[in-house]
Amino acid sequence: MARPHLGWIGTGIMGVPMARNLLQAGYEVTVFNRTRGKADELVAIGARWADNPAGAAGEADLVATMVADSPDVESVYLADNGVCAGLRAGALAIDMSTVSPDTARKVGAAVADRGASFLDAPVSGGKTGAEAGTLAIMVGGEAADLERARPVFEVLGKTVVHCGPTGYGQLTKLCNQILCGLNLLAVCEAFVFAQRAGLDVKTMLEVTSQGAAGSWALENLGTRMAAGDFEPMFLIDLQNKDLRIALETARADTVPLPGTALVHQLLAASQAAGEGRLGTQALLRTLQRMAGIAE
Amino acid sequence: MARPHLGWIGTGIMGVPMARNLLQAGYEVTVFNRTRGKADELVAIGARWADNPAGAAGEADLVATMVADSPDVESVYLADNGVCAGLRAGALAIDMSTVSPDTARKVGAAVADRGASFLDAPVSGGKTGAEAGTLAIMVGGEAADLERARPVFEVLGKTVVHCGPTGYGQLTKLCNQILCGLNLLAVCEAFVFAQRAGLDVKTMLEVTSQGAAGSWALENLGTRMAAGDFEPMFLIDLQNKDLRIALETARADTVPLPGTALVHQLLAASQAAGEGRLGTQALLRTLQRMAGIAE
Repeated sequence: MARPHLGWIGTGIMGVPMARNLLQAGYEVTVFNRTRGKADELVAIGARWADNPAGAAGEADLVATMVADSPDVESVYLADNGVCAGLRAGALAIDMSTVSPDTARKVGAAVADRGASFLDAPVSGGKTGAEAGTLAIMVGGEAADLERARPVFEVLGKTVVHCGPTGYGQLTKLCNQILCGLNLLAVCEAFVFAQRAGLDVKTMLEVTSQGAAGSWALENLGTRMAAGDFEPMFLIDLQNKDLRIALETARADTVPLPGTALVHQLLAASQAAGEGRLGTQALLRTLQRMAGIAE
Repeated sequence: MARPHLGWIGTGIMGVPMARNLLQAGYEVTVFNRTRGKADELVAIGARWADNPAGAAGEADLVATMVADSPDVESVYLADNGVCAGLRAGALAIDMSTVSPDTARKVGAAVADRGASFLDAPVSGGKTGAEAGTLAIMVGGEAADLERARPVFEVLGKTVVHCGPTGYGQLTKLCNQILCGLNLLAVCEAFVFAQRAGLDVKTMLEVTSQGAAGSWALENLGTRMAAGDFEPMFLIDLQNKDLRIALETARADTVPLPGTALVHQLLAASQAAGEGRLGTQALLRTLQRMAGIAE
């Protein structure tokens, strides 16, 4: 079978390296992005440019979207020149953004109305995982559609898991973000406690990461905090958008998430301090301000 | 140099396997425990019995204590027939319990008054780590005293870290417990969210543990939660005792720890439900009750 022609919509921090990996794997890719300049790098290595999402979808067997939030996904799919306006019957549309499960279901239904198929397939692993092609991909939708997409997923990630019907990829990603948020707060609280107690923070990080307190956050974000490095691996703004969706979804299901709600409020304090475009590890600065620790 | 004669006080879940490893490594050990029957296993394999802590300390070059809480440690060291009443000048006393840094300093000063030396050396790794001799040991006190104790520590653990002067082992352990508490809450919240959303919880655990959400708690406690296994690796009662000490210490330093305070309150709800003697992963049941999920 010939390789499918791909459409790719969204060329931000994640979208560029993901689409680049597909181009380098030999796929033909037509790209669209709201800000054209951010797609220049992909066009320079062979991507075709489309003037709107319908154009990127129109010649594609498989079109993937990677944008910021639920309204962006709805607009990309449902607007006049959106994906659904161009999508061919029998094509497969995959939203890899992290958005609400409701958005996944709404967009999935619109795609089905075009006679096409839909998967929600949000990812975990951040910019580093996108560049290395080692993302974890959480897939909601029909198993047969996942199999059609598998060769593409295997270029992008190392773990591909079918989580259930449409929306279940997003629900699983929300679990992931609940975990990330509280693990992050854990590192921040241990860090300010250690700082104020006069401990050598690096020694504390070294010994605690050996045992039952260990986590990806401790090893990766703790080290950056100790180095005063707040460059984003993942933005505070996006982490808090994801927690907002988790809390809205949980509230609809009447599931109290007191810890997640607290992290959401503390990240809002980081945003209020103008730090939303820093990496999530900058939540430390909010905890430091609360403890009166000078930066 | 001849092997030091050891005193060992405290033969609970942790103390028995630790002292057993030392006996099996060839040390002579004199033991005392408040409830004598809990030391029977050690006496059966060669430990000598003493009728009180002073007796266990009296013939020891190195005496270690492993009891539950700050008042227990103060009593074991400072009471009429306590360690300090028996300790020989030049001996080394090591408290491996998790207690307040203030208790470590108070007991350390009393030991110094006897012309002996003191280390606070709490451990991480739980019953499994105690049995396997793979504990992480966080040591406060003089570096030279740590070197005297190193052969004993190397029987008990695989990571031995000097954290600073007296009390700094305890301060580091409190950081460890802050991390454990919030990582535990993370797993509980992701779990109830997944349950209520209708996700397959094992699939969620599998995919989230691959990436930035990963933690020791997710891999070890998440798996037990999914199996409905609430047998203790570490008791809710003890985890919450440790968080109480962390919060008291932080308050004295005016460090707000909002997440740790929340975990402390939720674990108190588990205790109120009569679940304090279950493993920490049973915090899930409190979150499930809050969400109206039947057990």
